[in-house]
Amino acid sequence: MQSGRIENGFRLTKVGVTSVIKPVQVARPNKVVTLTATFDVFVDLPWDRRGAHLSRNLEAITEIVDETVRNPVYSLEDLAAKICVKLIEKHEYATHGEVWARADYFLEKVTPMGRKGLEAFKLVARANARRAGRIEVRKSIGVEVVGMTACPCAMETIREDNPVYASLKGVPIITHNQRNRTSLVLEEPDGHDIEADDLIEIVEASMSAPTYEVLKRPDEGRLVERAHARPRFVEDVVREVLGRVLDAHKDLPDDVVVKVKSESEESIHKHNAVAERVATLGELRER
Amino acid sequence: MQSGRIENGFRLTKVGVTSVIKPVQVARPNKVVTLTATFDVFVDLPWDRRGAHLSRNLEAITEIVDETVRNPVYSLEDLAAKICVKLIEKHEYATHGEVWARADYFLEKVTPMGRKGLEAFKLVARANARRAGRIEVRKSIGVEVVGMTACPCAMETIREDNPVYASLKGVPIITHNQRNRTSLVLEEPDGHDIEADDLIEIVEASMSAPTYEVLKRPDEGRLVERAHARPRFVEDVVREVLGRVLDAHKDLPDDVVVKVKSESEESIHKHNAVAERVATLGELRER
Amino acid sequence: MQSGRIENGFRLTKVGVTSVIKPVQVARPNKVVTLTATFDVFVDLPWDRRGAHLSRNLEAITEIVDETVRNPVYSLEDLAAKICVKLIEKHEYATHGEVWARADYFLEKVTPMGRKGLEAFKLVARANARRAGRIEVRKSIGVEVVGMTACPCAMETIREDNPVYASLKGVPIITHNQRNRTSLVLEEPDGHDIEADDLIEIVEASMSAPTYEVLKRPDEGRLVERAHARPRFVEDVVREVLGRVLDAHKDLPDDVVVKVKSESEESIHKHNAVAERVATLGELRER
Amino acid sequence: MQSGRIENGFRLTKVGVTSVIKPVQVARPNKVVTLTATFDVFVDLPWDRRGAHLSRNLEAITEIVDETVRNPVYSLEDLAAKICVKLIEKHEYATHGEVWARADYFLEKVTPMGRKGLEAFKLVARANARRAGRIEVRKSIGVEVVGMTACPCAMETIREDNPVYASLKGVPIITHNQRNRTSLVLEEPDGHDIEADDLIEIVEASMSAPTYEVLKRPDEGRLVERAHARPRFVEDVVREVLGRVLDAHKDLPDDVVVKVKSESEESIHKHNAVAERVATLGELRER
Repeated sequence: MQSGRIENGFRLTKVGVTSVIKPVQVARPNKVVTLTATFDVFVDLPWDRRGAHLSRNLEAITEIVDETVRNPVYSLEDLAAKICVKLIEKHEYATHGEVWARADYFLEKVTPMGRKGLEAFKLVARANARRAGRIEVRKSIGVEVVGMTACPCAMETIREDNPVYASLKGVPIITHNQRNRTSLVLEEPDGHDIEADDLIEIVEASMSAPTYEVLKRPDEGRLVERAHARPRFVEDVVREVLGRVLDAHKDLPDDVVVKVKSESEESIHKHNAVAERVATLGELRER
Repeated sequence: MQSGRIENGFRLTKVGVTSVIKPVQVARPNKVVTLTATFDVFVDLPWDRRGAHLSRNLEAITEIVDETVRNPVYSLEDLAAKICVKLIEKHEYATHGEVWARADYFLEKVTPMGRKGLEAFKLVARANARRAGRIEVRKSIGVEVVGMTACPCAMETIREDNPVYASLKGVPIITHNQRNRTSLVLEEPDGHDIEADDLIEIVEASMSAPTYEVLKRPDEGRLVERAHARPRFVEDVVREVLGRVLDAHKDLPDDVVVKVKSESEESIHKHNAVAERVATLGELRER
Repeated sequence: MQSGRIENGFRLTKVGVTSVIKPVQVARPNKVVTLTATFDVFVDLPWDRRGAHLSRNLEAITEIVDETVRNPVYSLEDLAAKICVKLIEKHEYATHGEVWARADYFLEKVTPMGRKGLEAFKLVARANARRAGRIEVRKSIGVEVVGMTACPCAMETIREDNPVYASLKGVPIITHNQRNRTSLVLEEPDGHDIEADDLIEIVEASMSAPTYEVLKRPDEGRLVERAHARPRFVEDVVREVLGRVLDAHKDLPDDVVVKVKSESEESIHKHNAVAERVATLGELRER
Repeated sequence: MQSGRIENGFRLTKVGVTSVIKPVQVARPNKVVTLTATFDVFVDLPWDRRGAHLSRNLEAITEIVDETVRNPVYSLEDLAAKICVKLIEKHEYATHGEVWARADYFLEKVTPMGRKGLEAFKLVARANARRAGRIEVRKSIGVEVVGMTACPCAMETIREDNPVYASLKGVPIITHNQRNRTSLVLEEPDGHDIEADDLIEIVEASMSAPTYEVLKRPDEGRLVERAHARPRFVEDVVREVLGRVLDAHKDLPDDVVVKVKSESEESIHKHNAVAERVATLGELRER
């Protein structure tokens, strides 16, 4: 029935399924990790075809995920790219495919006092395929990191207005600080290897401070001092991330797209503060 | 501190605040309704300026919302547009402004058996302003409607495979049906009036059936019959909405952008089915 | 069909509907406010009856809400109580009814520097009815307030460990602070009037500081100073709320149940900190 | 500072942390599976102690989860129980501990036409510990299953009202059907082994039909037929689950608590229908 031809139909940009949950295995340098990934997958649909065979989307996901048990993939974006190619192969009428994969991800981190522990992050991988003679695929890998920002503006206001703190030149004083979520998504051209762990590193280094699960008292003290020594607006966080991406990826071509978004759950407000930049590396390099 | 000049900064596409909740008043033909609206507002930030004054965003929202008590606005998109202009005026360094406003909205509807009642919908308004000599504003109004789809494919499969139903030619038989969410967002050029109530009407008419809060037994029976007499894929729903938008808005110019998305919470799957089209009316008219 | 008798059935504790959204009108001292309320309503079902007539739940909500247009109710909990009585009347087989109503709510507040503005809060009302000869109803009113906590422990650790701050005796120094959500729910016996506005006041006074939408620089400075002058664990917040409830409601009987929960979205962690107490006023008074 | 003594404090029922995410390993009959678990953990706090050492909660989770790498646990509820005992040991002032662990979980299932595939479910484990001389622990294991319900009432109404269907005696006809979420939580006393996989089986068998990720056309047809041959109210689903739990667990003692909740995302309404029962097995057996 889906393959029935219709007249006066409109082309559809995306037809697919969302919120498909699957355990997947990804090979890391020293081990294989199991992630619980959530997939959204789409193809386009020409104007004269009534429907897309949605079950093929599920088959594409399942076949590729099953194959990874024998031939592990090395990243979530490689997995998304393989599914995207399979989508185009299975939907012979489609010219575009799109795959999103999201998962919780864990990395060992070290607190200021040297304590090791696993911290939780989010990965988001995307692949877009285009049938143009052969199938061309573009893929991206992104991370979402929860950290901390301390406000530089309130710190200065208090220093100026309150004589108690006025004498403390060069010493960080009280300000509002809060939970911050910053995401960085970077296109990964063929032949270039972008490591999610490095993106997490870039984001954590650009906040006032990272956050940790287990903090004993001295660790807590050092972390708060560190955050107050590096007060940051969301605007500052986004720009630091952009600068670090340029420095770390001089080899990436100019047409690579990067997106950075930083959101602070303001402790002094009920609403959030946000800053964002979407650009090609070429645009950023022209600065 | 935000107005401090920096070197080697990057331009930021969006800086602003999200999740600001406000009661607003909108004038309707015969009455004034109070909506609980949630706002996200942003401006851009030039490369050489450290920060945007975020409090000005809240002032812009508050001043315009307060003004509506004396001078009512006639739609949520008009309210968003006024806030967007005020944003650009207050952030003298910004060249772009963006405002989103979302709210629950209620309309009286009539069930198949003629019972009247209030049904709940969602409104989403958007305004984008650009400083180019004078301030230019574009605005959109969108609706999200919860209704029902019945699957045409399973109905046919069962008719073909199961002799019990094979003889029932022309009679709708069993199939899976489910809750469906369809959104329609349309740009509203100056001088054109697009009424959210009409967009809701278009979407409801394009589903297998609308849904209702209070259904006594005969109403429930008629509604189920109606849905099964009009089985629809998500692809069908999107295309019907697009067709009805073209018919109803022949006067709108070709560069008006329309976005339609339909998502069915499939009763036979744990995942959802989705179809989407984003296009200008010009592209759709070329069909 | 629902009224069909079954054998060997089990009694059901709750049968009903959730997520019914309605605009409601509540009379306040000087005006009538419109709230967008979300209702969950339930009755119990005896073992020998197959189903509850769910449409009666919607009729109960609709009839009472419509009636408020002519005869305004004075609180969300009064509205919930009326719906709950109507539920029991309509479901002649039920012995228990339960109604929850939730809504965003707005109050004018004044910042440290004297600026007035509307702040957003959440209301949650509950009513339970029991058929025992006549219908007995108990109702509760609750509020959820977003404010700020500053950590007393990190402040002391830093004072002890860091010589730069050691000399600042009596002066608040840097610590982590964050967005905090505290809820207070109190039973309201017949003949007693509990005002949601007062509960909000109690909760705001028990945090390190309230939060505000619009804060110009001096306001922001004073608010941060205020929060650091009153560092609070979530444990402290819950206990302060309990103490203030006892002080403000000496006339309430001992069997009134109170529930307080405070959750801090820790700026130095990815997880939240929570404290909670559920008790009768009698238990608290025995302290 | 937390251990500081206070006067006139109130005892706190729960103090702890929420939303701690960890990868955990659980041994199953033939393999070890990795789950991404989310933990909420609490202890009580006596009236005269200012605060609980929250970092000890994270240490308790981390130490037990790390230990499972060497000594695997056999269920999520065993993991929760071990963490709960560790909590009580670490918080020497606490008399009660509570641990919740939630995770996505996957099981191989077979479609009506015999196709094998992984389906997603949710697990929720809970443990409560009480210090009373030695430490006593009670634990529960629960599952949440997404399946399908078809409404028996609309089917009968249409059969009665519509002559087209009146002749189809004994043949299932059209009705509304929808996605349904049913959860079953059962206490697991020491010495009794309750297998989450069996609870999932019980719930799936009690719905109109289970749901599957990949359904080719004949599978889809058979599944829809199956659901329409077994129309179920949410009330029916809860009672069937209760009956099956009693049958399958004749050996469990009378004081074991069971909770069943079934929620249908009604395709003909914008709101959901819900039924629930909380009871001891003893109460259910008295039926």
